[in-house]
Amino acid sequence: MTRKIITLLTDFGLQDIYVGVLKGVISQINPDVSIIDITHQIPPQDLYSASYCLGSAFPYFPPDTIYIGVVDPGVGSNRKAIAIQSPEGSYFIGPDNGIFTSVINHFPQITVRELTNSRYWLGEKPSATFHGRDIFAPVAAYLAKGIAFSDLGELIPQESLIKLPLTSYRVTSEGIRGVIQYMDNFGNIITNIPGNLVQGKSWRVKIANIIIQPQVTYSKQSQGKLLAVVSSDGWIEIAVNGGNAQQKLGLNLGDEILVEFR
Amino acid sequence: MTRKIITLLTDFGLQDIYVGVLKGVISQINPDVSIIDITHQIPPQDLYSASYCLGSAFPYFPPDTIYIGVVDPGVGSNRKAIAIQSPEGSYFIGPDNGIFTSVINHFPQITVRELTNSRYWLGEKPSATFHGRDIFAPVAAYLAKGIAFSDLGELIPQESLIKLPLTSYRVTSEGIRGVIQYMDNFGNIITNIPGNLVQGKSWRVKIANIIIQPQVTYSKQSQGKLLAVVSSDGWIEIAVNGGNAQQKLGLNLGDEILVEFR
Amino acid sequence: MTRKIITLLTDFGLQDIYVGVLKGVISQINPDVSIIDITHQIPPQDLYSASYCLGSAFPYFPPDTIYIGVVDPGVGSNRKAIAIQSPEGSYFIGPDNGIFTSVINHFPQITVRELTNSRYWLGEKPSATFHGRDIFAPVAAYLAKGIAFSDLGELIPQESLIKLPLTSYRVTSEGIRGVIQYMDNFGNIITNIPGNLVQGKSWRVKIANIIIQPQVTYSKQSQGKLLAVVSSDGWIEIAVNGGNAQQKLGLNLGDEILVEFR
Repeated sequence: MTRKIITLLTDFGLQDIYVGVLKGVISQINPDVSIIDITHQIPPQDLYSASYCLGSAFPYFPPDTIYIGVVDPGVGSNRKAIAIQSPEGSYFIGPDNGIFTSVINHFPQITVRELTNSRYWLGEKPSATFHGRDIFAPVAAYLAKGIAFSDLGELIPQESLIKLPLTSYRVTSEGIRGVIQYMDNFGNIITNIPGNLVQGKSWRVKIANIIIQPQVTYSKQSQGKLLAVVSSDGWIEIAVNGGNAQQKLGLNLGDEILVEFR
Repeated sequence: MTRKIITLLTDFGLQDIYVGVLKGVISQINPDVSIIDITHQIPPQDLYSASYCLGSAFPYFPPDTIYIGVVDPGVGSNRKAIAIQSPEGSYFIGPDNGIFTSVINHFPQITVRELTNSRYWLGEKPSATFHGRDIFAPVAAYLAKGIAFSDLGELIPQESLIKLPLTSYRVTSEGIRGVIQYMDNFGNIITNIPGNLVQGKSWRVKIANIIIQPQVTYSKQSQGKLLAVVSSDGWIEIAVNGGNAQQKLGLNLGDEILVEFR
Repeated sequence: MTRKIITLLTDFGLQDIYVGVLKGVISQINPDVSIIDITHQIPPQDLYSASYCLGSAFPYFPPDTIYIGVVDPGVGSNRKAIAIQSPEGSYFIGPDNGIFTSVINHFPQITVRELTNSRYWLGEKPSATFHGRDIFAPVAAYLAKGIAFSDLGELIPQESLIKLPLTSYRVTSEGIRGVIQYMDNFGNIITNIPGNLVQGKSWRVKIANIIIQPQVTYSKQSQGKLLAVVSSDGWIEIAVNGGNAQQKLGLNLGDEILVEFR
């Protein structure tokens, strides 16, 4: 029988034992699961990066995958612990604090339960500072074992969930105005403008008063020069061939960008 | 049949191939094992952090887990290579240099063997600099395969094992005096004072002449302010809500802390 | 049945979701595979380190392992996507850009195919910037599932593959002249001079006008002092007992080193 997959996305970093402890707890309850790290290096408590990363990663996993997301500045407060069931049969488990914004926006309809049934926690009384270990990991392990979703706790309305106030791109007379939504480890700058809006058109990018020309891929530009490209996830991206656009331009998350047409 | 778990805790970092090579060696001998990383970012040759991390992680794994610990400044010298069998049936494999101090202190009784049987090594003659690959990983893989513990080498007395000289907390007329035993990736400061000593009492922390008030969890304190809390592993911890206590206070491992009562 | 192993070696880093996405794609196609990370922290676009690391790691894995290597500055250009079959039955999958130099040099005879059959890609039309996800990971997953190597695409001659121009050591009247080929996370300096050339001889190292004496292992030298040693992979290595030789000497990849005999 094929093993179920549980993925982990956190801001724990890899220096401490916290990620290992999540895996220990899951293995104790359900040793026959595959655990896959999406990333543990979300900047501490950065829910925007967490939502972007989870939303960009989940389309590449099997439909019955169980996703744990733990970026949880409000742990131990009255923020809810939730599990989301998608129409495809995947589950998203974590705090109700906006970390699942991209997931909620992706699926027209989801079913959500508050994790109130302590039978599926690590112990009756969770710690006040580590619900990843005490609630989210055990619930994921039990779900992978086949317990019923309805057993986890009461239904809560989809509309009650917390969503991050994401900026949308706007089509204006000058072109499409968007913002930087992510910058990756290579220094590539990912905007929130979908690449299909420039398909078949003559376009260029203006950012911080610099004009950047589009290319099909990195290596079509000269070494060390800026280029615009449609990213592998379908967004307008700014990069440097063989270099780091973030270092070259010195921009920040949320900075504005304009796509111009001719 | 449920797969056995082998965990890894090292100071190898993740830049080089050393962790991958350990996993290759294990898989060659026993492909049907689950390998879980606890951490590979113990500060180079820091046995105190290694012992703290291993001791804090193992209670969350299944009872028959096999733990490899490799922080090994004396590799190739006459320090012993050992395997420890706990009463629960778990094994701890690595150098006899203090890395297992917290494990030895946890279990009243353990059985220890020196790893002298080269039949369970990677080759007859191990390298002088990488016993993780040549001795510890293969021994763990064979144990997971079911070879007898008694086959690994001669028994050695528990009392002969090397233990780190850990500082204990002391109850004084002013309160409980302890030290900082670990600082995590979030900048949380973990002391060596057990949280159950303050349960139900009115307490506060004094460190570097600063008074810090206790809270139930991080988010009960104002953003950016210091608080004391009982950590998820049960120790008195100093943290900053939404921030980094280590950066704010500039303290070091071993620095003194006082818990006062009123 | 024993599970097949797919290993990953990239310059993606662990901050972003790219490694997790590779694992998702593999799991979607073939959930019953074991995925092992060799490293994801090859310096961005450094093919020399990638080739060294892959060549040093693969001898420790089972003979039927499938290796994915993705350091790919020319992605989306006309560089070929290839799969190499070794005489032992292992596969190496990635770009034809020199990343497999050490593999090609190791095996006298290999069989190579260009990955042109889009049936084994993630979709008909791969992105221009992420062939790891769109070609290499799916091809590896299908190979692990048992599809025929001959199905992947046309044979291409071994001689046509791109190889990095590696510097060899030279035996001179003064001794053996070599270069630094790798520096690890501990600051150990790995040269390209095989350790078996000094076996049973009286030797020492000269680098940047400093004479360094050989030792059997790190701890035979005083704390903080330089030593030369035969590395665990069989190369002449320069290290500091309990310290970092790279920081102490301030050298770079490719810098010259001399082994002298007396």
